[in-house]
Amino acid sequence: MNKFLTVKDVSDIDRLILQALEYKTFPFKDRTLGHGKRIGLLFFNPSMRTRLSTQIAAKNLGMDPIVLNVGQEGWALEFADHAIMNGSTVEHIRDAAPVLGQYFDILCVRTFPKLLSCEEDEGEKVMNAFLKLSGVPIVSLESTTRHPLQSLTDLITIRENFHEKRKPKIVMTWAPHIKAIPHCVANSFAEWVIAEGNADFTIAQPKGYELSEKYTRGAKVVTDQASALEGADFVYVKNWSSYEQYGKILGDHPEWMLTEKSLEKAPHAKVMHCLPLRRNVELSDEILDGHRSLLTKQAANRVCAAQSVLAHILRTIG
Amino acid sequence: MNKFLTVKDVSDIDRLILQALEYKTFPFKDRTLGHGKRIGLLFFNPSMRTRLSTQIAAKNLGMDPIVLNVGQEGWALEFADHAIMNGSTVEHIRDAAPVLGQYFDILCVRTFPKLLSCEEDEGEKVMNAFLKLSGVPIVSLESTTRHPLQSLTDLITIRENFHEKRKPKIVMTWAPHIKAIPHCVANSFAEWVIAEGNADFTIAQPKGYELSEKYTRGAKVVTDQASALEGADFVYVKNWSSYEQYGKILGDHPEWMLTEKSLEKAPHAKVMHCLPLRRNVELSDEILDGHRSLLTKQAANRVCAAQSVLAHILRTIG
Amino acid sequence: MNKFLTVKDVSDIDRLILQALEYKTFPFKDRTLGHGKRIGLLFFNPSMRTRLSTQIAAKNLGMDPIVLNVGQEGWALEFADHAIMNGSTVEHIRDAAPVLGQYFDILCVRTFPKLLSCEEDEGEKVMNAFLKLSGVPIVSLESTTRHPLQSLTDLITIRENFHEKRKPKIVMTWAPHIKAIPHCVANSFAEWVIAEGNADFTIAQPKGYELSEKYTRGAKVVTDQASALEGADFVYVKNWSSYEQYGKILGDHPEWMLTEKSLEKAPHAKVMHCLPLRRNVELSDEILDGHRSLLTKQAANRVCAAQSVLAHILRTIG
Repeated sequence: MNKFLTVKDVSDIDRLILQALEYKTFPFKDRTLGHGKRIGLLFFNPSMRTRLSTQIAAKNLGMDPIVLNVGQEGWALEFADHAIMNGSTVEHIRDAAPVLGQYFDILCVRTFPKLLSCEEDEGEKVMNAFLKLSGVPIVSLESTTRHPLQSLTDLITIRENFHEKRKPKIVMTWAPHIKAIPHCVANSFAEWVIAEGNADFTIAQPKGYELSEKYTRGAKVVTDQASALEGADFVYVKNWSSYEQYGKILGDHPEWMLTEKSLEKAPHAKVMHCLPLRRNVELSDEILDGHRSLLTKQAANRVCAAQSVLAHILRTIG
Repeated sequence: MNKFLTVKDVSDIDRLILQALEYKTFPFKDRTLGHGKRIGLLFFNPSMRTRLSTQIAAKNLGMDPIVLNVGQEGWALEFADHAIMNGSTVEHIRDAAPVLGQYFDILCVRTFPKLLSCEEDEGEKVMNAFLKLSGVPIVSLESTTRHPLQSLTDLITIRENFHEKRKPKIVMTWAPHIKAIPHCVANSFAEWVIAEGNADFTIAQPKGYELSEKYTRGAKVVTDQASALEGADFVYVKNWSSYEQYGKILGDHPEWMLTEKSLEKAPHAKVMHCLPLRRNVELSDEILDGHRSLLTKQAANRVCAAQSVLAHILRTIG
Repeated sequence: MNKFLTVKDVSDIDRLILQALEYKTFPFKDRTLGHGKRIGLLFFNPSMRTRLSTQIAAKNLGMDPIVLNVGQEGWALEFADHAIMNGSTVEHIRDAAPVLGQYFDILCVRTFPKLLSCEEDEGEKVMNAFLKLSGVPIVSLESTTRHPLQSLTDLITIRENFHEKRKPKIVMTWAPHIKAIPHCVANSFAEWVIAEGNADFTIAQPKGYELSEKYTRGAKVVTDQASALEGADFVYVKNWSSYEQYGKILGDHPEWMLTEKSLEKAPHAKVMHCLPLRRNVELSDEILDGHRSLLTKQAANRVCAAQSVLAHILRTIG
């Protein structure tokens, strides 16, 4: 694996999951694998779990990560080809990315969509620029369309917490929020669950909030939360803004906030969320502080997920 | 020791001091004690000495600290129970702290009081939330009421610089400032000197600036700086705002700024201050640049103090 | 070498260059040289290449750098002697620098000029304060007058890319910019090329933009770019503001932006720039994306240059 931006970069999801679970038990089993390799973590946007877990994962493999808060500590970057840079950007990605590729053996990049233009966000200009120009493996720490380290974590967490012979019933449900939120986590979760192909998978959202079919083809997509939740084993809760009316909030829908009552017909359902979350807006205290919540375990798995990906890349680059 | 927030967490102050002095001479004597352990430093507020010395202490013990500037690099946290999070906070401490406890074996936390409400500051909501929710040892890097790593440093510095058979006379004197300053360092210094029980200890401040008795019971508390300073061996200089009229500045009192003249009757007095300090407001150039100042030595001792605390905790968690 | 602020601190430039080239090939050949040594990187201003390359260089030598963004993470520092600190600065350099000298064995400092007063900027108050007060070797990561790690990098890059028996013809040419830019890189490049004494060196700039003779004595200084560029082997492109009318922009001079046409009479010229740069203002896409550009190689050499300097200092302090 020489890049990690979407599930399509993974040839064997199962192996990646199993290796992660092994690292969870034995975090230092490959403590010298990364010796002499340099890994850079570039943050264009805030991050807590991703920032910390990726650093820990790298350290577990014997690498010494260097973090750069790009805008705050470095220079404002320009991405437009042929720009005449007489404005506020100080350095062009065409000049910066190759240098970063000289400094590091692996570059991890975090950038958010602006949600102003679907075309722009789907263009993945930041990730694609690093891919094209840096000359080294790129790991997405969340991009304008996806969050693959989160999704790998989610599959690991489901794997760990499901012990039946049958396929699990997984429901991803839209939740209310006060801001327009990116589609990345939802897109990515759908893409990974479908690619793994080992679940009965439903996505529920209010009308108008359907995700792009690019990510959801293969899932059951419904607008009735109550019936979707019936018999669910895992309920993945997430807000996202409208895709059709790109980046817009179409309505509050407070009744979509998950409570114990919403799960009456899903007695065994475990609840997941990528965090951060707004309590009592997206998810109720009663769910979060109750027996169904997998959230802390899920976030803890960010470390072994990142470690599995980095180990795979280290083995590829040798 | 499985937490370090007040002197009450320490069963044997003397041992902590002696171990620190040993680390000062032999910083690498336990260079593998922390191998495989993860330590996180969370800063809700600025810091220079604490930030640097704690990192160095951790590295001396073979740990690889990870620093997070919580507000700037991560997410704005909510602390109110049952909050409906439709405002500016993005993540609840109830969700964040357990995750951080999964990522790290030891969490060090720095947070300042707001000085708006005595009750709120004494509630220590940030420290207590991490204590209650993270599941790992918490080390205070300064809290809303105390600064125990500073106070341990101060006792180490006094121990190093006093060679008489008798008890030292220690005077903590209020100093002028232009801003309303927290009580933490003063509270904590009083608490530690009194707990150690090995000094003739006086606190001098202008009327109205008396600290809470919670911290000063056992000290002589006076409002006459001149007579308090007579015969002092150590003069600990610090500003703090009023406790009675909580967080207020009651008057400038420029005459309280320490000069050589103030120390006429304390010929051997050494002067201490935790830094940062405002020259020629809190303390005069003549004192700071003269033979009495212990300030650089004192700040240097932040490393061995932190190292002693972290080593103690590492031995406890095994 | 016990400090690195100007070329005058270097007794043998050639040895420093050769050692750097050796580190470029064998980055880990001295991987234990810095064991047990602490290096602090203090940033008063933004930085990308310098920040990353110096960290990597330190790690290659077995040191574990600690980075402090002084203003953002620490305290606003005062530099004026005898200041009565009742304003916005929180700590005096006289108090901070000695403490930092206790925490670290080597201090690296980055600070920019304000370009308001020639006298102030040439006073190098930040660097000189650390030199005078910290008690440890200081490495400039760019100061108010110079950028020596950049210049060493530049000489390394020229050395690597020139294989004739004769001296190279090096032309440093002023380039347009939209902001008033410091003279540091230009001063320093001139100073180093002249000190090495192994080049035919010309500086070209529009009238009024002449650099201080303090740095350029020994170079040919002209105002006609076209004739200066004839037969150049290396063209070092850089903007700087006026020195005579200190810190001012005297005119746009867009015709000074380098294009292929400007280099018609320099068919073998390689182009250099320290980065960051403003595309199509300072330098044209056609040059940057063409065969003449050494920019990525040059920036990559920041690592081995820093490593050579740090190794030299480590050997001095023992």
